[in-house]
Amino acid sequence: MMRESTSIEIEPIDEEQLSYDLIEAQYQLKESCGTAQAKSLLILVSGVELAGKGEAVQQLREWVDPRHLIVKADVPYPLGQQHPFWQPYARYIPAQGQMTLLFGNWYSDLLATAMHISQPLTREQFVACVDEMRAFEQDLQANHVQVIKFWFDLPWEKLQKRLDKLDPSVQKWQQLHGLDWRSNTQYATLQKIRQAMTDDWIVIDGSDETLRNQKFAQYILAALQQPLAEIKPKAITGRWKKSSIPKQLLSIEQNTLEKAVYKEKLKFLTKHVAQALRQDKRNIVIVFEGMDAAGKGGAIKRIIKKLDPREYEIFTIAAPERYELRRPYLWRFWTKLPKNAGITIFDRSWYGRVLVERVEALAKPMEWKRAYAEINRFEQSLLDNNTVVIKFWLAISEDEQAIRFKARQNTPHKRFKITEEDWRNREKWQQYLQAAADMFEHTNTACAPWHIIATDDKRSARLIVLEKILQQLKVAP
Amino acid sequence: MMRESTSIEIEPIDEEQLSYDLIEAQYQLKESCGTAQAKSLLILVSGVELAGKGEAVQQLREWVDPRHLIVKADVPYPLGQQHPFWQPYARYIPAQGQMTLLFGNWYSDLLATAMHISQPLTREQFVACVDEMRAFEQDLQANHVQVIKFWFDLPWEKLQKRLDKLDPSVQKWQQLHGLDWRSNTQYATLQKIRQAMTDDWIVIDGSDETLRNQKFAQYILAALQQPLAEIKPKAITGRWKKSSIPKQLLSIEQNTLEKAVYKEKLKFLTKHVAQALRQDKRNIVIVFEGMDAAGKGGAIKRIIKKLDPREYEIFTIAAPERYELRRPYLWRFWTKLPKNAGITIFDRSWYGRVLVERVEALAKPMEWKRAYAEINRFEQSLLDNNTVVIKFWLAISEDEQAIRFKARQNTPHKRFKITEEDWRNREKWQQYLQAAADMFEHTNTACAPWHIIATDDKRSARLIVLEKILQQLKVAP
Repeated sequence: MMRESTSIEIEPIDEEQLSYDLIEAQYQLKESCGTAQAKSLLILVSGVELAGKGEAVQQLREWVDPRHLIVKADVPYPLGQQHPFWQPYARYIPAQGQMTLLFGNWYSDLLATAMHISQPLTREQFVACVDEMRAFEQDLQANHVQVIKFWFDLPWEKLQKRLDKLDPSVQKWQQLHGLDWRSNTQYATLQKIRQAMTDDWIVIDGSDETLRNQKFAQYILAALQQPLAEIKPKAITGRWKKSSIPKQLLSIEQNTLEKAVYKEKLKFLTKHVAQALRQDKRNIVIVFEGMDAAGKGGAIKRIIKKLDPREYEIFTIAAPERYELRRPYLWRFWTKLPKNAGITIFDRSWYGRVLVERVEALAKPMEWKRAYAEINRFEQSLLDNNTVVIKFWLAISEDEQAIRFKARQNTPHKRFKITEEDWRNREKWQQYLQAAADMFEHTNTACAPWHIIATDDKRSARLIVLEKILQQLKVAP
Repeated sequence: MMRESTSIEIEPIDEEQLSYDLIEAQYQLKESCGTAQAKSLLILVSGVELAGKGEAVQQLREWVDPRHLIVKADVPYPLGQQHPFWQPYARYIPAQGQMTLLFGNWYSDLLATAMHISQPLTREQFVACVDEMRAFEQDLQANHVQVIKFWFDLPWEKLQKRLDKLDPSVQKWQQLHGLDWRSNTQYATLQKIRQAMTDDWIVIDGSDETLRNQKFAQYILAALQQPLAEIKPKAITGRWKKSSIPKQLLSIEQNTLEKAVYKEKLKFLTKHVAQALRQDKRNIVIVFEGMDAAGKGGAIKRIIKKLDPREYEIFTIAAPERYELRRPYLWRFWTKLPKNAGITIFDRSWYGRVLVERVEALAKPMEWKRAYAEINRFEQSLLDNNTVVIKFWLAISEDEQAIRFKARQNTPHKRFKITEEDWRNREKWQQYLQAAADMFEHTNTACAPWHIIATDDKRSARLIVLEKILQQLKVAP
């Protein structure tokens, strides 16, 4: 992010030249799409009323090619443990080559929350929110989404003068904001709290219209022209330390459960899991990862056994589509999360970044190494917002996998579950084990621990999955 | 759509065979994607409570490859002039190769509305809604989305017995429905009104569990196996009659407006248009079509002149992306419509189907010929739901276009507006004129008329656009 401290000198330049440069830069951005230098630009705009945000954007629209500038202006979504701050805006995160401007954004939500709710945020809470937002923006930048933030400011006296002169017919959109701009106290409070967040923003004084519009456009031009290398965080240096492979994965449990015992326990557990899933009023996210044929599908089938299909959603995660590849790898999960105490099951997940994408070299080492922290922040923001995350790694032995592959090939209605690629993946068994081990080491957090289930006995695996789910849910005593 | 009257004999068949056939059919569907035979399958499920909808879907999920069956279950969206019935479900319309099942759908919304609102729908209103829904489904089928509808039924006595035996812990999802299934009156009313809509549905008696699940799955299998040719409506036959080209387009107005007069009128009009756009509490859709360089961008700029960028949204419509091509051509517009008295401006639009797609042979003759009626139905459903549609065709003479093209080439910051393709398109001038003429003939409806603005004078064109907008808006006297 560009900081105001590294300010470029702003002198008004020839408008036609500025327009020409902006359009050229837009086309370079657009043409970067699909290359190693691809990036997108996300512009966040906030500020004092009547400081000229709208006018500056209108002027920008006239200078650039307006067909390649997307402007969104949502009404505020109050913050408050119901959704991560980024969730309402996930759909607007620009794809490579795109430029998107958000009037409504997570900071305006934060300010609206801080200014309006009956029990205001403490300074510590406010600063914690800002820190979280900055970390999110760093993750965006690491994933090729450049973020630039503008605060349009206006001194108190100027604001009052502009209010005096205001044409009453243009007031419609001002209802969106709901602050009393005639109140000196509110103005002072806003200025005080916004200063705790805008030190990495570009602050634009809205007093002088020409300078304001020029400064805004010139900063955007500079951002467009900035090469990706300057935006992306530094690569993680230092030697990568492989984690040791958990013992369970090296000697897979072989005991088998008797069918009658299994049936009885299964009946009990499926019923209780269904009840618990209904009783727990949080959003529930269940993640399955594991070796091929380790029984993810079978385990999911037992979780939903006593549920109605209207009560849950299952996403089977395959290779991303082209429009998904043009955005941060977490993007396609941001839009699949449960709401309103819903239940979402992921058959494979965002962990693909540090598993298949690592092993198959679809992600660069610095990308998957950075992904552990990104994933932890992502899951933490779910946990902070009324969501429980239950993660399973299902492991079987290499021999057992071969047996199951062959059985699938010989069962007509299961043949679709087995392809040539599955056999090829077996050659990378050790690499997948290592990737799993590193994943446990880096993402086994206290609130979203990994449940490693390592047994060649399908029945036992299914029962343990159900038991672990019960343990993580809040059930009335 | 398959009708119950063309019923296939339902005998339970071997489950493994059924599963195998379903999976094979799923893969054929998936592999059809991108071919001329490509289709998708949309399954609508409704019915009496406890008739076993959920169980039948659960069973289906076990027989098919569950990774390629998408199940959605939204709570009802009451109907009532706020949005077209299809709008909440637009995002779920399956792409070619996909199979999607909707528990919540436009019919459940209609039934919920008919059963619940204080002022119930008249029989005429109900039947009109059903007719509209069927027409929409016909349009889906014409655009490769096969629709199959299931009503799960249960006689009154059986329903009461199942309610007696109901485990109280499974009641969560039943709160979604909000009918009193113990009330004989409500049951009778529901049966009466649903019969006015289900004669092109497959009605499944939920009394016998095995037969119910088998019938449901076998009908879906038959639907999957049905070739596209059987689903698509018959081609429009009879000779295509070209419409005559409106005189205005053949002799473009040449008078020019004096700059001072223009400036004065423009100032007045931009102000009044902004006021009127704010005052009119309907959703506002403004569509621009026309020859290249006819001044669409310039006209749009004047409309928004006195608006804040937060008050409107502009979509510039270019060639569809791959994921858009896999769905009905109107799909990408369904998701871009204004809500809550919003203003949306389309710089090119759904009329591309009968303009560029026709002229460039990107749509087959039977496709663009059918599109006129599809577009009229689409716009009618907007008009019926609190939306005003304002349509402009901007025309200039061939000579004037050449002058403007050259001017663009010589202005550095406007060069992006002109490409080789634009010059090539001039060779098809007559074809575009003919396409426009046919479009006027078939889509110039009383409530969404075309405003043809044919002048080589930019200034006049802009003023007329603003005047026409004022005419179509509701303004306080």
